[in-house]
Amino acid sequence: MPSLNLLPVSNSTIPGSNKSKTKVAIVGATGYTGQELVRLLLQHPAVDIQAATTQSYNGKSYGEVYPSYTKLTQLVCGDENLDELADQVDVIFLALPHGNAAAKISEDLLKKCTVIDLGADFRLKNHEDYPQWYQFDHPQPALLRHSVYGLPELNREKIAGAKLIANPGCFATCAILTLTPLLRNGLVKLDSIIIDAMSGVSGAGRSLTLGTHFNECNESVKAYKVGSHRHTPEIEQALAEVAQSQFPVSFTPHLVPMNRGILVTAYASLINGVSQEDIWNAYKAAYAEEPFVRLCDRACSDYPYPETRWVKGSNFCDIGVTVDQRTNRVVAIGAIDNLIKGAAGQAIQNMNLVCSWEETAGLMQPPIFPA
Amino acid sequence: MPSLNLLPVSNSTIPGSNKSKTKVAIVGATGYTGQELVRLLLQHPAVDIQAATTQSYNGKSYGEVYPSYTKLTQLVCGDENLDELADQVDVIFLALPHGNAAAKISEDLLKKCTVIDLGADFRLKNHEDYPQWYQFDHPQPALLRHSVYGLPELNREKIAGAKLIANPGCFATCAILTLTPLLRNGLVKLDSIIIDAMSGVSGAGRSLTLGTHFNECNESVKAYKVGSHRHTPEIEQALAEVAQSQFPVSFTPHLVPMNRGILVTAYASLINGVSQEDIWNAYKAAYAEEPFVRLCDRACSDYPYPETRWVKGSNFCDIGVTVDQRTNRVVAIGAIDNLIKGAAGQAIQNMNLVCSWEETAGLMQPPIFPA
Amino acid sequence: MPSLNLLPVSNSTIPGSNKSKTKVAIVGATGYTGQELVRLLLQHPAVDIQAATTQSYNGKSYGEVYPSYTKLTQLVCGDENLDELADQVDVIFLALPHGNAAAKISEDLLKKCTVIDLGADFRLKNHEDYPQWYQFDHPQPALLRHSVYGLPELNREKIAGAKLIANPGCFATCAILTLTPLLRNGLVKLDSIIIDAMSGVSGAGRSLTLGTHFNECNESVKAYKVGSHRHTPEIEQALAEVAQSQFPVSFTPHLVPMNRGILVTAYASLINGVSQEDIWNAYKAAYAEEPFVRLCDRACSDYPYPETRWVKGSNFCDIGVTVDQRTNRVVAIGAIDNLIKGAAGQAIQNMNLVCSWEETAGLMQPPIFPA
Amino acid sequence: MPSLNLLPVSNSTIPGSNKSKTKVAIVGATGYTGQELVRLLLQHPAVDIQAATTQSYNGKSYGEVYPSYTKLTQLVCGDENLDELADQVDVIFLALPHGNAAAKISEDLLKKCTVIDLGADFRLKNHEDYPQWYQFDHPQPALLRHSVYGLPELNREKIAGAKLIANPGCFATCAILTLTPLLRNGLVKLDSIIIDAMSGVSGAGRSLTLGTHFNECNESVKAYKVGSHRHTPEIEQALAEVAQSQFPVSFTPHLVPMNRGILVTAYASLINGVSQEDIWNAYKAAYAEEPFVRLCDRACSDYPYPETRWVKGSNFCDIGVTVDQRTNRVVAIGAIDNLIKGAAGQAIQNMNLVCSWEETAGLMQPPIFPA
Repeated sequence: MPSLNLLPVSNSTIPGSNKSKTKVAIVGATGYTGQELVRLLLQHPAVDIQAATTQSYNGKSYGEVYPSYTKLTQLVCGDENLDELADQVDVIFLALPHGNAAAKISEDLLKKCTVIDLGADFRLKNHEDYPQWYQFDHPQPALLRHSVYGLPELNREKIAGAKLIANPGCFATCAILTLTPLLRNGLVKLDSIIIDAMSGVSGAGRSLTLGTHFNECNESVKAYKVGSHRHTPEIEQALAEVAQSQFPVSFTPHLVPMNRGILVTAYASLINGVSQEDIWNAYKAAYAEEPFVRLCDRACSDYPYPETRWVKGSNFCDIGVTVDQRTNRVVAIGAIDNLIKGAAGQAIQNMNLVCSWEETAGLMQPPIFPA
Repeated sequence: MPSLNLLPVSNSTIPGSNKSKTKVAIVGATGYTGQELVRLLLQHPAVDIQAATTQSYNGKSYGEVYPSYTKLTQLVCGDENLDELADQVDVIFLALPHGNAAAKISEDLLKKCTVIDLGADFRLKNHEDYPQWYQFDHPQPALLRHSVYGLPELNREKIAGAKLIANPGCFATCAILTLTPLLRNGLVKLDSIIIDAMSGVSGAGRSLTLGTHFNECNESVKAYKVGSHRHTPEIEQALAEVAQSQFPVSFTPHLVPMNRGILVTAYASLINGVSQEDIWNAYKAAYAEEPFVRLCDRACSDYPYPETRWVKGSNFCDIGVTVDQRTNRVVAIGAIDNLIKGAAGQAIQNMNLVCSWEETAGLMQPPIFPA
Repeated sequence: MPSLNLLPVSNSTIPGSNKSKTKVAIVGATGYTGQELVRLLLQHPAVDIQAATTQSYNGKSYGEVYPSYTKLTQLVCGDENLDELADQVDVIFLALPHGNAAAKISEDLLKKCTVIDLGADFRLKNHEDYPQWYQFDHPQPALLRHSVYGLPELNREKIAGAKLIANPGCFATCAILTLTPLLRNGLVKLDSIIIDAMSGVSGAGRSLTLGTHFNECNESVKAYKVGSHRHTPEIEQALAEVAQSQFPVSFTPHLVPMNRGILVTAYASLINGVSQEDIWNAYKAAYAEEPFVRLCDRACSDYPYPETRWVKGSNFCDIGVTVDQRTNRVVAIGAIDNLIKGAAGQAIQNMNLVCSWEETAGLMQPPIFPA
Repeated sequence: MPSLNLLPVSNSTIPGSNKSKTKVAIVGATGYTGQELVRLLLQHPAVDIQAATTQSYNGKSYGEVYPSYTKLTQLVCGDENLDELADQVDVIFLALPHGNAAAKISEDLLKKCTVIDLGADFRLKNHEDYPQWYQFDHPQPALLRHSVYGLPELNREKIAGAKLIANPGCFATCAILTLTPLLRNGLVKLDSIIIDAMSGVSGAGRSLTLGTHFNECNESVKAYKVGSHRHTPEIEQALAEVAQSQFPVSFTPHLVPMNRGILVTAYASLINGVSQEDIWNAYKAAYAEEPFVRLCDRACSDYPYPETRWVKGSNFCDIGVTVDQRTNRVVAIGAIDNLIKGAAGQAIQNMNLVCSWEETAGLMQPPIFPA
């Protein structure tokens, strides 16, 4: 009987290949993002998880923290010692609260392994943005120059050679992918962009707050951090690079009562003379060959726009786009799973690029529905 | 032991008053909107429900259709005969699918009683909008002149004398109330208005569709009818009257997985020189005395914006407003219960005006939370 | 225009009556149960809320704590001083964590006013049950003799004359009402009773715990405290009194992902010869005249069993009962709103009895659906 | 760059093996169960899906029916022609409404390929149970002798050689696995067994009904088919085989507002002298080596009982068991994902046994959480 177990086997080379598996450590492995990294990396055919560290559950088996992993992994939560980990692994994933990673990374450490930071500490190029948007002074502004913004659809080549990758924020990932073709092709007025977004509650993490207590957010919706959400400068930085021009955007996140998923609805005024066909062609040119971006076919009348259920559990970003002739605006809508393309999945996509694995390796699980 | 039962007693005058109760009929009483009318009118101290008609449950007791009403009412679902009903009651509420009411109303009927239509058939003043937005030719364009748009905060006086009231749509109610102070005072650029909105699933009614099957909409969000939703012309018509100028708006509704509630997030570019203080003053001037509009206090740091949970089960519209200095836009956010202020509650508010009851009569139930 | 506002007016007598309103204080007014008391008492025609005390929000207006109350009440959260309150009010409602009330009540205090305790501190007659089930030694075992178990359908007369009322637990209320007719009439074997129950998350209160964090309980169900839940001795004590015999029951609560509602499914083996008709007659005899208990009509094929949605927002307990001939068991199912009949509503029902108001006063709101 | 795509590649042999892939057809591929088969089989390393048939979407690409599959499969929904399919494939999965499969299967067809029926048509050995429980006369009672009940933990060896496999019902799977160790070891009184169960709404399938309309089942729970659910005889048949004795059970299913998951809480009276240790040993003996059954460790205080979230998206059945000394009963609790271990996953587990693949092949995805 051939062995087909999808879980990583103990041998450290890939079956049918002489290439070694990538050794990884997950720092902050028991938050939602860290757990999603564990889940996906356990399914990755070319990865060995060497360590999972945590502040709260040190010494516990991973299955005690999350009973879903019983009989699936022998991982035990360990101490966080980045220098030691860097000697042992090829890639360190950091899934820490904002502000925690910046002080821990050094150029020396980056000589020993690649760091993929799922927090915000290395996303913004201008260190002055940190006190303004994140309320802390960046301890290592010099490192910001080294970091590569880990959105493969924009930065694939830089990522492949990076030692320090700033994995994008969940809202930012969805907003940037949704708007990029409009800006790359100069189809819309830069000062007209409005980004309205919704997130499931897992985006707020596992820390206890009144706002994420079941009865306080179930069966209700709200906007929050209107005009002041921390993903705003990250979105603006990425879009400025695409458009080759600086401009502010309006960004309003909303909390909706579901576990996972982000939906972005973005508005922009069309440059005169731009047609629906121009728009559509820009999206096809940008994404037809992208493995993880899917365009909603205008001809499919049942599902003309993205819905978060169709990406849940996957690394896909689904995008639909419509021209409203009455207002001469384009409405572009994007959907992702906030914990996958918006966090752990994209981090693995970045790792695949760094390690020269196929970009889709370990990430082609179909969405799970209904779920 | 004094009798304090809140349900309407059999005597047809108000205790402590020599005024007769208002006799009403509900046509289409077993859909969600009709049922909400029944629920609220049973609690109204000055109303007798004389008839509840339905297409699907004729002859059944109301408690058989909705077991929640067992021991609360003796209502039996009856045949719809508008002419007979008009002879017996003071007010007829129509809670019918769009297109069904228009042909049933006549000037003769309106001589006998007041009609409050919760559908869209008498909302648009220009009969040519019906084929464009509703895909039917309006059978009685002449009646459109008689109808009054039943948004009391805008049209209180006209409503008081009306015989035919077009009760506003749920999204329209929330969007118009949220934006009116900005337009009444000329604070924003008219061509810049974008209305992003979310609705709970009850807004789609009780008819079975794949999109409202539990597993198809639970744990997911989507936009729908982007740029083409039927409440668009209604919003534009009302805002044009406020602004004294015609202009199109972008309107995108979204479906979110909860039973009730609408949240509107509206964006507009400020006229040069308009301050946060000007904005705030405009909202206070418009709504400080309104019984059903509440402004989110900027000083309340815990809840700076409306949330649908705080209006659920009530006739309130909560509004919060923020100026985003970076983009020179105002973001105005409104929340209502789609079945109450967005439908049945507002219809009763209109009835109160027509019948010279206190405008809040029967409508001051506090929101129910958590629910 | 006659004044029909349902909220309590400032005059302290009932319109059309020369009887004074009941003055009440709510101690622990900002938890879910306390808030529900505020909500319902604001709608009660014969009550004035004199004070609302809280540990966490002292000095804040009630509308700051719960924005749903803006424009509805001027209540300000105050200090808890039971002795002072007892001088000013007729009834004190205690909505405190278990173990907090016991030490605060004295015989002197009970001479000044009636206390209705929504916690468990006075529910169990045998003080030795407290260390076993609640892990504290009862500080005032003598007071347990004074307290009356506040389940009106069982103890209506004793409640009317009580000074200290132990308001039943939510699960206990539903389980006892569901089983009582079977036991009162000796229809089932006492040692065969199994009570399986589900509760919405609000039953766990507003304190933050990992288990009630949205993502941890949404889209999942679990049993908890199997065979050890604290409502067990309370259920056994009440059923023993009905059956005139002591016996243990199996009780398993489950947590289900919804805001409100309790469903009890109880099983018992029939005494030989007992028929479906006997069962039905016992339930009719027990509850036909009860204002807040409704029996699911066996003839109503669409809704043969209770569903929590039909009682949500109301003080009703709906009960359905079926004989399973194959196993010679009866299955009795009950549904309540855990915050109303399971807490605040029943407390007001008790207050009505104590104060000689109509038992249903302020409690006849129809269930709210869909909600 | 090595190719690591998890999706089935076009070559029909397994990489690193000279064994051919299993060719399968899915009949009824667009219901929830059929779709789950597609999802899991696309991830199976040793399967090629040759055909997916459907009544409603013939000729549509699978990605048009379920947009989640865009860029993941080229499957096109085809006509159902069982005889043709049987010539082309090794295994046919039937995911049809009850009563539809029975007439379509013949001994000739079973000579050509193996049939795994996910419906109920071949589950009951006694053909007279069909009119009683399913309201149809079984058209091919002779075939019932050939069918093997596809619960691998009970029937692993028979399944391996079967041509016609009756895949168990979702409730039945969970109930039987939860109770088997108690019965196999004679630890409980047979006439005392009560099975209380809850299911997410996907168990009701994708057909539109009022009861599965979002607003009718969201935020509510109910029991249904009390004492008359069709999985009852299936449970009794399997348990009778384990216990070597016929006996009836009480079974009550409940509908709870979530997409996926089944929780069974089962009660039984202990034979005198049976200890908690005896119980625990029986479960360990039964399941310690089972790849898909996990026992909740009594020592794990945070999660002593199964929760559906820990199995969601996986083929696991989690089981916890407690002795209640006060009532001398055992309470055994089991949790599964109704669409995986309760349907599609178990069907694939059966296929693996039939085809001599490793039993866990394609089925070791960790549960997805929060989801």
